[in-house]
Amino acid sequence: MKLSTYFLPTLKETPSEATVVSHRLMLRAGMISQSTAGIYSWLPLGLRVLKKVEQIVREEQDRMGGQEVLMPLLQTAELWQESGRYDGYGKEMLRMQDRHERDLLFGPTAEEVITDIFRRYIKSYKALPKCFYQIHWKFRDEIRPRFGVMRGREFLMKDAYSFDVDKESAVNTYRAMMRTYLKTFQRLGLAVIPVRADTGVIGGDLSHEFHVLAQTGESQVYYDKKFDTFRENIDQVDVDEIMGLYAMADEMHKPEECPLEGEDLREARGIEVGHIFNFGTKYSEILNAKVVLADGSSIAPEMGSYGIGVSRLVGAIIEANHDEQGIIWPESVAPFQVALIGLGGTVEVSEVCERIYKDLEKVGVSVLYDNRSEGPGVKFSTADLIGLPWQIILGPKGLQEGLAEIKCRRTGDRESIPLESLVSYMQEKLC
Amino acid sequence: MKLSTYFLPTLKETPSEATVVSHRLMLRAGMISQSTAGIYSWLPLGLRVLKKVEQIVREEQDRMGGQEVLMPLLQTAELWQESGRYDGYGKEMLRMQDRHERDLLFGPTAEEVITDIFRRYIKSYKALPKCFYQIHWKFRDEIRPRFGVMRGREFLMKDAYSFDVDKESAVNTYRAMMRTYLKTFQRLGLAVIPVRADTGVIGGDLSHEFHVLAQTGESQVYYDKKFDTFRENIDQVDVDEIMGLYAMADEMHKPEECPLEGEDLREARGIEVGHIFNFGTKYSEILNAKVVLADGSSIAPEMGSYGIGVSRLVGAIIEANHDEQGIIWPESVAPFQVALIGLGGTVEVSEVCERIYKDLEKVGVSVLYDNRSEGPGVKFSTADLIGLPWQIILGPKGLQEGLAEIKCRRTGDRESIPLESLVSYMQEKLC
Repeated sequence: MKLSTYFLPTLKETPSEATVVSHRLMLRAGMISQSTAGIYSWLPLGLRVLKKVEQIVREEQDRMGGQEVLMPLLQTAELWQESGRYDGYGKEMLRMQDRHERDLLFGPTAEEVITDIFRRYIKSYKALPKCFYQIHWKFRDEIRPRFGVMRGREFLMKDAYSFDVDKESAVNTYRAMMRTYLKTFQRLGLAVIPVRADTGVIGGDLSHEFHVLAQTGESQVYYDKKFDTFRENIDQVDVDEIMGLYAMADEMHKPEECPLEGEDLREARGIEVGHIFNFGTKYSEILNAKVVLADGSSIAPEMGSYGIGVSRLVGAIIEANHDEQGIIWPESVAPFQVALIGLGGTVEVSEVCERIYKDLEKVGVSVLYDNRSEGPGVKFSTADLIGLPWQIILGPKGLQEGLAEIKCRRTGDRESIPLESLVSYMQEKLC
Repeated sequence: MKLSTYFLPTLKETPSEATVVSHRLMLRAGMISQSTAGIYSWLPLGLRVLKKVEQIVREEQDRMGGQEVLMPLLQTAELWQESGRYDGYGKEMLRMQDRHERDLLFGPTAEEVITDIFRRYIKSYKALPKCFYQIHWKFRDEIRPRFGVMRGREFLMKDAYSFDVDKESAVNTYRAMMRTYLKTFQRLGLAVIPVRADTGVIGGDLSHEFHVLAQTGESQVYYDKKFDTFRENIDQVDVDEIMGLYAMADEMHKPEECPLEGEDLREARGIEVGHIFNFGTKYSEILNAKVVLADGSSIAPEMGSYGIGVSRLVGAIIEANHDEQGIIWPESVAPFQVALIGLGGTVEVSEVCERIYKDLEKVGVSVLYDNRSEGPGVKFSTADLIGLPWQIILGPKGLQEGLAEIKCRRTGDRESIPLESLVSYMQEKLC
């Protein structure tokens, strides 16, 4: 992509309404634009990141056997009256009437809808276990939306729902989802702690929240230091071992009951980005979803639900990955892999940059080429602000010497690389 | 994917509420499930097709220089009051109030929102031309939703918006979008006619509708027979030539004014799947979106908007591609490329099918493997119903002879292929 035509409305000034760093940086980097309180448009750069995050979440849900569906944005009040949650949900649920005065609502979650689908089509235990997921927009009418996409009203969520024949199978599914979540966050480049959680309005008796460690986190997390080792070896680690470790957020942590002391207990700030629940037969019972067993009797399946805040994650990733100059994207979610910066405005530099741009794109490296007629200061600060992992810098002097400078955004390390080996060098760096 | 675990709730009976063939087949093939009038859940098979269609639409928008954004589902009433469309839009617009009693609406289209984004960030003619698009859910509260996803209330749409510095440039953008649309529909395997259209509530003076030719279409289309030749050579054809040909739907066609007669004038039924508009400065003027020209004066940019009904297309593709037995997917949008059917229930057949399944997936061929313990009749009718382009059939007799049968769903042609060359044979068929 060439920056001269790309829509990247970066801001020099820090927007006054933004109180947290991810919100400030997303506005300054031209990733989002607020439409009204808690409702944002995703501009091209922001949408690229959102889709990268979404795709990693999707791949891991698929890998664990989740089947992707897409449920309606608008749900009927009847279904929520049937489950008994319609009146209790309160003002966070956005309600409306259609032209025939039927009550609708913008779905804040989908336990009712998925259980309704289940009961229509699935009648036998042989079809179990089943796990469905969707990645779709939700609306929760927060009283004070804030922190940009971290606490918006309209937000993108991955919500999964599982159906099992008995408790043991349900706990196995829960474990599999725990592993899937840990793997997902690892791929997103995040240090995440699963803490024991309250089950709240969803109900049930087994629940974990997932907190991204970031200095700006809203809650305090207390956890066994072994997490820091396990997290890096998630593919080899027994999930039961992880679930057995101590980890609590402030509302659940009681110092007098904590088995760990001193060095063994770590403390950090955390941002909640996921929440998983095993809630048994709460919805299957009340909505009368039944399967027939081999012996002819029928039971309500054991259920769980599993959320990841996909749009919120974009903010959380920035909270955990930034410096004074701007964002530092983990490679897995970077909107482009390379910022190509041409300096000096000479025809020769432009020609060589153009060739580098094409050669890199040809081998599948995504490049944002800053071909604007701006000075080095503006180009460097734009590149640092939007945080692409690698910068390739070429000016008239480098061109004369046949060298481009490569800067790693995260470490600040710089290397001079001969132009003729630039493509293979970048390919190596990126694999 | 293995059918024993895949959620594919096919129906034997024809659902009585479905009056058009695509609606019947989508319900019978387990692609969608109605939630309430005009609002559907997309089940796994349906969602795979929806995403294939979406991705083809996206690639062609990208190719013509469109920049993808994602605008909010919920829009503020203020913006529509500013444009003057809030009161006039009528009951098709779903309106609601949030907890602070602010008026919101579920966006039926996004001219206002994109113009608002434009006016915030784009101030100079140098940034033009710009074309933004999104693929996102819309809601129109149809008084009588019907025909399944063909006339739903909640639907997926690609809507693009262009901004140009003058009329000439705007018409060039319009031409480029015309070509993009023709290419998009060609890739979707559809015969489509662009007809001159009324500009309706959007306004403006240049507009085309795109009609998929299908016997079950809702409108009558009259067009120059040359379209049938041009359509197949779209990459070589001058767009002006196509735009110069006669093509009208019934409401615009006046026999006495039609320049064509006899053989030269073709007639067919059509389903509208796209609509493009050049409407000048209607929204940029009223919303005060201005750019400064080189001479320091400022102008309101020339705009256009360009829609494709993405979810509707899934229905339209089926209307144009089916037979008595079920759907016949064009290869570009098929949910899987191959249905692998194991017969006879012997261990030997299962083992070989398993190997074929893995070998095909390994080389990137997507396979739905019917490993259920059902008889041949059920398996054949499921495969024909869901309409994957190719069927590979293997039973004990074939296994003994070392041969699998390959059936082309569209032509019904069958061939016996040695098992050892099956993978390379399929790869050739699919490239």
